[in-house]
Amino acid sequence: MRIALDAMGTDAAPAAEVAGAIEALHELDPAIEVVLVGDQATLEASLARHPEAPVGRLHISHARDRVTASDAPASVIRRKPNSSIVVGLKLVKAGEADAFVSAGSTGAVMATSLFTLRPLPGVARPAIGALLPTAERPCLLLDAGANVDCKPQHLLQFAHLGHVYAQDLMGIANPRVALLNIGEEPEKGDELTLGAHRLLKSAGGLNFVGNVEGRDIIQGVCDVVVCDGFVGNVLLKFYESVAEFTIGLLKKELKHSHEQLNLEEVFRILDYAEYGGAPLLGVGGVSIICHGESSPRAIRNAVAVAAQAVRSGMVTHIAREVSPRVNHQERA
Amino acid sequence: MRIALDAMGTDAAPAAEVAGAIEALHELDPAIEVVLVGDQATLEASLARHPEAPVGRLHISHARDRVTASDAPASVIRRKPNSSIVVGLKLVKAGEADAFVSAGSTGAVMATSLFTLRPLPGVARPAIGALLPTAERPCLLLDAGANVDCKPQHLLQFAHLGHVYAQDLMGIANPRVALLNIGEEPEKGDELTLGAHRLLKSAGGLNFVGNVEGRDIIQGVCDVVVCDGFVGNVLLKFYESVAEFTIGLLKKELKHSHEQLNLEEVFRILDYAEYGGAPLLGVGGVSIICHGESSPRAIRNAVAVAAQAVRSGMVTHIAREVSPRVNHQERA
Repeated sequence: MRIALDAMGTDAAPAAEVAGAIEALHELDPAIEVVLVGDQATLEASLARHPEAPVGRLHISHARDRVTASDAPASVIRRKPNSSIVVGLKLVKAGEADAFVSAGSTGAVMATSLFTLRPLPGVARPAIGALLPTAERPCLLLDAGANVDCKPQHLLQFAHLGHVYAQDLMGIANPRVALLNIGEEPEKGDELTLGAHRLLKSAGGLNFVGNVEGRDIIQGVCDVVVCDGFVGNVLLKFYESVAEFTIGLLKKELKHSHEQLNLEEVFRILDYAEYGGAPLLGVGGVSIICHGESSPRAIRNAVAVAAQAVRSGMVTHIAREVSPRVNHQERA
Repeated sequence: MRIALDAMGTDAAPAAEVAGAIEALHELDPAIEVVLVGDQATLEASLARHPEAPVGRLHISHARDRVTASDAPASVIRRKPNSSIVVGLKLVKAGEADAFVSAGSTGAVMATSLFTLRPLPGVARPAIGALLPTAERPCLLLDAGANVDCKPQHLLQFAHLGHVYAQDLMGIANPRVALLNIGEEPEKGDELTLGAHRLLKSAGGLNFVGNVEGRDIIQGVCDVVVCDGFVGNVLLKFYESVAEFTIGLLKKELKHSHEQLNLEEVFRILDYAEYGGAPLLGVGGVSIICHGESSPRAIRNAVAVAAQAVRSGMVTHIAREVSPRVNHQERA
């Protein structure tokens, strides 16, 4: 199995990507190979600093350009055809790689994935899933930012996308799917969530547990929570900052009290890097988006998630899950 | 100055309210008087346990009914005219009290305030303001849940409401007002925020600092942040739970390490009770909504906020701020 890894994505590219790829190859399934996508000379120089690299399973695919924050996401495919994002996704499209992982511009990875891998038949709006740390196992939030101005049927589709992801990647046989809302009662909400609640309630094949409020997510009451991409994006960014803020306050206290404390376990639970990136769900291939400040560990975990998505046949499962249901909606 | 305090609102009513009222009378401006609104016999029995109560400044207004979670908010005014919420707000309406404070059902306080105190001329949508603890001083978030399905001009009005609140209650001469969005660039957002950004940018009399993302709020980059009531409500509830969750994780670690730590300062910063309730802004009177689980301290702080709102002439300021601008919008 070959994972194409954008080697020009992180703020510390390509060092973080190269180190992460090597970690993945050493620690994960020996059937995995990684294709580093980026400038050949730069990557060779970076690899030279890693004598421990398992060279037979580590390849380079040359891409001389790098997408930057100033590139308009939608124009990357046309304006930067030799960028690591475009080259990497084309490897997947051509069947030369089984999945793509990138810590580059979220917008550019998303737009180029949509253009290259195309939405699966029946998927109106592919969505970004993000794993939120909770009191229990993590909760998949989607859409985390791919779509603003959603309609109720889009939220229903997000539920199906999340259902499959939770089964295939989180190992949950019958994932609890919830709708993010401002009250638990079915009659609470705005136009979007009122409509989505009705659709979700009557949808087949979903373990819909009803509305959840902002405060419920963290209690671990559901495995998948669906919302509009605007709300999801605001919430996701807010989560990180509140956790950091709270830890910061506590650290200051610890300093005052001259006490030392091992916070590693706390940081591990709250660390996004543990969860291995956010998948773009609903396109015809595996595409995983990582933070721009991803550590080698985060890259390694994203490669692991990509490999599991491939191994589990997630894309096929999504195609099967979504297609007939969408037709059902259209007929209705 | 008389503050009408719903004595049947908290989960621990009337004990928390009575204790909070007495704290307020002892600690705040001696010109303040509190009218406890609730069942007379119950309140007299509760007061009998407080020999320290300054009886001359503590009054009772009898209301035999209590609004419960099962009462539909909009029907309370009609179905429970003798409830503490309706009786208390009618005292304000009749000029027998200058402000109302309640820890009862948010929906019922809101609906009854709207009906009794009426929206100020030109205010299309009164909004609930909520103070979020941040790295700097608290940030006022509005709307925190009064209005879902907002239009751009509603968000503009929230900005004006928040502007006055920040001036009068937070003592900020030129409050920085921001729009909650999924990107800092003006061209980012959904239909609502794109439209609101345009209105806010060209609005007079506001220190509009542009879009902020979920992660920026906590950094203290603005004094007021406006958003749709759906997003605001989800965010507010999420905030509390993430902070609690993070503290919980750290506490567990502290236990493991057998160390003791004084977390009082941390809890103080993260404690909503410190901030004294959420004002309903844009109605013809002062109405402050508190948590159902408010402590006496939280009640005392809400009375303090109510008193400052009265003293500063907040309602008059809002009327002046909003009215001409709305006319301007209508002419446009």
